[in-house]
Amino acid sequence: MVGEIRPDELRVDIGRLSRRIDELGQIGRIDGPNGEWGNARLALTDEDRAGRDLVVGWMRDLGLDVRIDAIGNVVATRAGSDPDLAPVMCGSHIDTVGTGGRFDGNLGVLAGLEIVELLDEHGIRTRRPFQVAFFTDEEGSRFAPDMLGSLVFVGGMPLEEALDVTAADDHSRLGDELVRIGYAGPVPCPTATPPHYFVELHIEQGPILEDEGITIGVVEGVQGISWTEVSIEGRSAHAGTTPMRLRRDPAYCAGALATFVRDVTRRLGGDQVGTVGRIDVYPNLVNVVPSRVVVAVDLRNTDDRVLQEAERLLHGYLDDLAADEGVEITTRSLARFEPVTFDAAMVDRVEHVARRLGHSSRRMSSGAGHDAQMLARICPTAMVFTPSVAGLSHNIAEFTEPDDVEAGANVLLQVLLEQLEPAT
Amino acid sequence: MVGEIRPDELRVDIGRLSRRIDELGQIGRIDGPNGEWGNARLALTDEDRAGRDLVVGWMRDLGLDVRIDAIGNVVATRAGSDPDLAPVMCGSHIDTVGTGGRFDGNLGVLAGLEIVELLDEHGIRTRRPFQVAFFTDEEGSRFAPDMLGSLVFVGGMPLEEALDVTAADDHSRLGDELVRIGYAGPVPCPTATPPHYFVELHIEQGPILEDEGITIGVVEGVQGISWTEVSIEGRSAHAGTTPMRLRRDPAYCAGALATFVRDVTRRLGGDQVGTVGRIDVYPNLVNVVPSRVVVAVDLRNTDDRVLQEAERLLHGYLDDLAADEGVEITTRSLARFEPVTFDAAMVDRVEHVARRLGHSSRRMSSGAGHDAQMLARICPTAMVFTPSVAGLSHNIAEFTEPDDVEAGANVLLQVLLEQLEPAT
Repeated sequence: MVGEIRPDELRVDIGRLSRRIDELGQIGRIDGPNGEWGNARLALTDEDRAGRDLVVGWMRDLGLDVRIDAIGNVVATRAGSDPDLAPVMCGSHIDTVGTGGRFDGNLGVLAGLEIVELLDEHGIRTRRPFQVAFFTDEEGSRFAPDMLGSLVFVGGMPLEEALDVTAADDHSRLGDELVRIGYAGPVPCPTATPPHYFVELHIEQGPILEDEGITIGVVEGVQGISWTEVSIEGRSAHAGTTPMRLRRDPAYCAGALATFVRDVTRRLGGDQVGTVGRIDVYPNLVNVVPSRVVVAVDLRNTDDRVLQEAERLLHGYLDDLAADEGVEITTRSLARFEPVTFDAAMVDRVEHVARRLGHSSRRMSSGAGHDAQMLARICPTAMVFTPSVAGLSHNIAEFTEPDDVEAGANVLLQVLLEQLEPAT
Repeated sequence: MVGEIRPDELRVDIGRLSRRIDELGQIGRIDGPNGEWGNARLALTDEDRAGRDLVVGWMRDLGLDVRIDAIGNVVATRAGSDPDLAPVMCGSHIDTVGTGGRFDGNLGVLAGLEIVELLDEHGIRTRRPFQVAFFTDEEGSRFAPDMLGSLVFVGGMPLEEALDVTAADDHSRLGDELVRIGYAGPVPCPTATPPHYFVELHIEQGPILEDEGITIGVVEGVQGISWTEVSIEGRSAHAGTTPMRLRRDPAYCAGALATFVRDVTRRLGGDQVGTVGRIDVYPNLVNVVPSRVVVAVDLRNTDDRVLQEAERLLHGYLDDLAADEGVEITTRSLARFEPVTFDAAMVDRVEHVARRLGHSSRRMSSGAGHDAQMLARICPTAMVFTPSVAGLSHNIAEFTEPDDVEAGANVLLQVLLEQLEPAT
């Protein structure tokens, strides 16, 4: 076989890729009641260390040059024939949420290793170096913010500040945990050598591709995110003895707010989404009008102007609500990220390759955050999405069909090969 | 003085009554940051025992015949001149919620002792025996249901069932706790000797009297209560990756339900109140459409037909909501009490006495439950309300002005005297 196949005819070995996904998934494995299974490998825990050791072992077995940087990001390099050219990089993360799946993140890293093995197998050399990376603490479940490793990698957060972040669970310091698990590496961070291109293969984590029967998501960018914590102070009162006209009821206000968020998405239309996922009621008793309710509002849009309009409508509504209901409302921004637009030429290449390989595809934005949005700050970047069964993710029942994993990995392979400039 | 005053000119000694209220309040005292103070004497705790011992000591000092029944209710009797007549009883409770005030319950018991002392002081004998009672576990904070002692007293709950109730805090058995604190008495329960009349003086625990500038609440009855737990099962989804049209969002439904409850009270008008005081969201994260939200709905009305209509509207709305939003909604009744109507002649007497003493008064229903509603099952019953500052109760800042305490105790005194048939 070696040397007998044209690079554009190369296809991944789905059996080998699936075996690596399943083997990594054994570490921190969680079994559900109906045969579904997923993972708990929170960043910088013993389970994360074990996962890292396994993947780094595979990288070394493949003869890659493995470097670990000061925030624990791991970059494995397959040399190119022209040492002066910047590398083409793919990658993602291998940490998970507390009850995560085995595809989220892992797929993008292990598909990279499959591509390395495939190139080796067929004796294909490339002019540019090829790098497979995994970034520290993408999920942010244990150390906030999420995408922390890639954020530091691109210079978006000072290293020392990141090392001083403390864990949500046991308050340990990120820098100490890195040392403890042996992943405080010697390579300076942020990186001194930006990639030529970065491509991330990831599961969609949503229901759109499955709903429309499409195999490949061509990701044009990442939605802007606006998180607002709304604290509503009313007056605690007895549910029986207090007439309606004498109430200042923050639970009613929270309810009205949840319906308003739905209304805003209808009014603005398009890609606008809005969610109330967190409601904390004090004292939360059946027979007490609460004194205080805290509601978190999550607004997202690919168009920052529309997102700003959604925020403006929210604040206007809250002003009216406070006046009408005699409550005090204060807001606090929990997060605000502008939308990210991926490199247009790279996005075109992903779409072109998906078509060439015969897969149905659609352009879409990512509703979730990804390491790719950080890499987009320093190099042309793109993402490839594969369908998530029932749209599930951050859930041990998360699943992507092997045919879809194979299709996504082949699109990643061919997009990378175009940039790697194969020499065979 | 003795014998020189007409019974209808008798007035309580507010100084003596206030001193007893304050002394009992020292047991389980809780001090707030701004000088306010209240009590924690949860039923059948060491603090409750100490409170009981103090009050029983006062009863014995006044020469009363103190009897303790099998559920720990304490009834102290001042003999009447005609031993064949049924006693006139007043009373309330001396247990408190975890952060309670020093007036709730205690006022009605200690006003009774003040009346005993006053009658003794003036050498006034009565044809009927006079009883001052306090009932076990009115608050229900430690042992459910509330009003447990008076419920067993009137035969509304079998004694053995009540003794087997376990504590919400440490799961100890009510019967064992009664023995432990020395209040498992020998008198059979339910009572073999229903009172001739029962009158309870209590703070309003709501804002109506203060809001209207009125001194005495003439309580016509107790609102019917309907508590419904509404469980809404949707589909957990990522707040960014899930388009609005593909959501089944139980938090939106909970919000819509909270606004519906307000609408129902507007539609039904009158005394109808409705409250959403408890909302539990799972998993309660800013960026996750919840899988499940549980909402408790509290509906109350003095007219059971209107309350039934409110319940009917609620269930109809939930059916529509489930169909519209693609969620599963199940409901469970947490409590359902029919309204209680007090004896019309007794209510008239309270109103008449309040007017005679020159106090402003209004007829009203009680939004909270009271021992009087249990006693109403076995004898003519009435209640007298005094104003609560800012409507606060179940709160260490609970307060009633001394003038109002005095007015309420004098109304209680004169209403009781009419029934006691003074012989002097």
